[in-house]
Amino acid sequence: MSEVIAKAKMAKEASFALGVLSTEQKNQALLQMADHLITRQAEIIEANAEDLERGRQTGLSVSLLDRLALNESRIEAMAEGLRQIVELPDPVGETLQTMTRPNGLRIRHLRVPIGLIGIIYEARPNVTVDAAGLCLKTGNAVVLRGGSAALSSNRKIIDILHDALDASAIPKDALQIVEDASRSSVDEMLKLNGIIDTIIPRGGASLIQNVVQNATVPVIETGAGICHTYLDAEAEPAMASDIAFNAKVQRPSVCNAMETLLVHESFAAAHLPDIAQRMKEANVELRGDKRACTLVPGMKEAAEQDWSTEYNDYVLNVKIVSSLDEALMHIRRYGTMHSECIVTENELHARRFLAEVDAAAVYHNASTRFTDGFEFGYGAEIGISTQKLHARGPMGLPALTSSKYLIEGSGQIRQ
Amino acid sequence: MSEVIAKAKMAKEASFALGVLSTEQKNQALLQMADHLITRQAEIIEANAEDLERGRQTGLSVSLLDRLALNESRIEAMAEGLRQIVELPDPVGETLQTMTRPNGLRIRHLRVPIGLIGIIYEARPNVTVDAAGLCLKTGNAVVLRGGSAALSSNRKIIDILHDALDASAIPKDALQIVEDASRSSVDEMLKLNGIIDTIIPRGGASLIQNVVQNATVPVIETGAGICHTYLDAEAEPAMASDIAFNAKVQRPSVCNAMETLLVHESFAAAHLPDIAQRMKEANVELRGDKRACTLVPGMKEAAEQDWSTEYNDYVLNVKIVSSLDEALMHIRRYGTMHSECIVTENELHARRFLAEVDAAAVYHNASTRFTDGFEFGYGAEIGISTQKLHARGPMGLPALTSSKYLIEGSGQIRQ
Repeated sequence: MSEVIAKAKMAKEASFALGVLSTEQKNQALLQMADHLITRQAEIIEANAEDLERGRQTGLSVSLLDRLALNESRIEAMAEGLRQIVELPDPVGETLQTMTRPNGLRIRHLRVPIGLIGIIYEARPNVTVDAAGLCLKTGNAVVLRGGSAALSSNRKIIDILHDALDASAIPKDALQIVEDASRSSVDEMLKLNGIIDTIIPRGGASLIQNVVQNATVPVIETGAGICHTYLDAEAEPAMASDIAFNAKVQRPSVCNAMETLLVHESFAAAHLPDIAQRMKEANVELRGDKRACTLVPGMKEAAEQDWSTEYNDYVLNVKIVSSLDEALMHIRRYGTMHSECIVTENELHARRFLAEVDAAAVYHNASTRFTDGFEFGYGAEIGISTQKLHARGPMGLPALTSSKYLIEGSGQIRQ
Repeated sequence: MSEVIAKAKMAKEASFALGVLSTEQKNQALLQMADHLITRQAEIIEANAEDLERGRQTGLSVSLLDRLALNESRIEAMAEGLRQIVELPDPVGETLQTMTRPNGLRIRHLRVPIGLIGIIYEARPNVTVDAAGLCLKTGNAVVLRGGSAALSSNRKIIDILHDALDASAIPKDALQIVEDASRSSVDEMLKLNGIIDTIIPRGGASLIQNVVQNATVPVIETGAGICHTYLDAEAEPAMASDIAFNAKVQRPSVCNAMETLLVHESFAAAHLPDIAQRMKEANVELRGDKRACTLVPGMKEAAEQDWSTEYNDYVLNVKIVSSLDEALMHIRRYGTMHSECIVTENELHARRFLAEVDAAAVYHNASTRFTDGFEFGYGAEIGISTQKLHARGPMGLPALTSSKYLIEGSGQIRQ
């Protein structure tokens, strides 16, 4: 039996005991986990140094090394993340509906854990702790498959979390990490129907597409964001500039940052040059359609593929449109149904945009950067769903639950 | 461009106009559809006769021919089904949550249509009408791919429904039927990510498994039911016999019928022979484990694969267990998480069974046959979900919706 199957089976078995624990028992375990991370942070930093050394030798980029690196403050943030999860209400056991049927059957519809969740992610050790905390809080066992570049860190973190679970009601087996760094361990996870109940990919577009294309286990698709901001003819100029600038520049590396700015032709003539100047001063590379290039001298012309590229970087596409409808059509064609924004003082246009754009989060006069579990008041999030089933947008703890019907009778049979 | 892709693209395009229609507009269209089916039933029966003739020539079984056959009363039932859908509340537009954040952002979480739904099903023309009605009522466009044996009937039904839509606000293109009877049209549908938002298979286990194994589009898995009834040591004998008999015999062909009877050894000694006798008199073939065969002379011994077979027929597995735990373990191993029942007067055992069995519907002292949208009071159902994401158990109209967040601001940017 492969490592993946063996560990997934152990985790599944443990999920049944975990699923019926009380909120208090689960919270106590999470607090133990947080405490152990702090008291043993030197060990984590030591293991992380091995990963960093190997990463430097194999030529990982500076930004990947940065995501991989742990230090005292990052470990404290991981522990603090667990403590924040403890503070969140436990959705498991919540009654969604109760009804008594004319034949006397009493039906209760309850939230229950999903069971066993698989998380496939990149070389970010903080995801190891975060995903473990979110899954265990919701009564789910979890099999983690992180990027191989973080293996030493992840192995050490899981060792420590396992020791923490020893002093808790949560069975250790409910938390598993796959150490097999080969691609085949991912492929195997994706096909474990009947053992793994759900796979959640967390990472870049290629990781997510591999999961979506190859999984037979149900997937919650997260992340990819080609987000647009549309500056309408009747946008308030200062607000339009601030929202566009914030959506692009405040943190370009994340999925809710803007990739394409759509500008109505009548607004563009007066205001696009200033906005372009502000972007350039923040080191944003601009790529425009023909009309935008005419308005902004020196702007590079965008290639067709640019409109469907998630840069996650200081690069921005700019397109001039002649109408709200043209903006809507562009978004329908190139958007990834993540976050889309209109800036306008025209209420009718705002209402149409909100109604007609098919995305998880649709904004009027606010930056797309707000699509986030914390900003929405959900506390922690396991990701931002860009699919339409089960959960859409920022996923809080309830997105990690399923439901079941309990039906109590007194001998009822069907006529 | 293949037929599937061309029709799916037309339907997707139409979904945007359909998605913003009012409940009244959609209901009016459904009533038109019902009226047209009634006034043109002679044409449907004529087309159906072609299918039946072809079916007889190709040697379809009697039960398949029965499912395929239409007559006046069946067409009236199809029209009545549409009228019942009209009476159901429209979930689209429902506000799930509203919140105002400290920064002044107003966030509304609303139910919206899923978009374009693909339905893959067998040669049952009633599903054509039923699925069309449920999808259109919830603002979804739909691509139907029914079994080839029903092609003449389906083509005629869709012609008639298209004519009905002419006098309605729903664009005709929102309702499409795939006429390509080859396997490749199904394969194509399963991979249309970005066009088809969800696939719902309706049919037998092999149809469903083909969809689950091969789809990259998100799937709502329905149907397969290996349901158990457990007669506990403290079951009330007459109730136990009635519930078991009803679960097996009242309609064996459906997914919520019982396939395996689990009996506690102390109850079995006194009561299994009578229950077995009653089953035999209803022409149920019994297959038991060794201990059951000892108690019921002449019972055939069950093969290992029998425990994981959904007979949908007058066949029943019988197993004697020594404890509630053994029953729970058997269900965990062989169940399909559909409907499971315990019959007992012992409240502690009932509570444990309800809490620990991982299934869409868990019963105490009532027949598993009640797992059904109508019996739960949901009106029509598109199927019974046996997966854990999005929807679980009988799926009413809300299961055919997604959600989105609308966020209204006054220039908020992220700090």
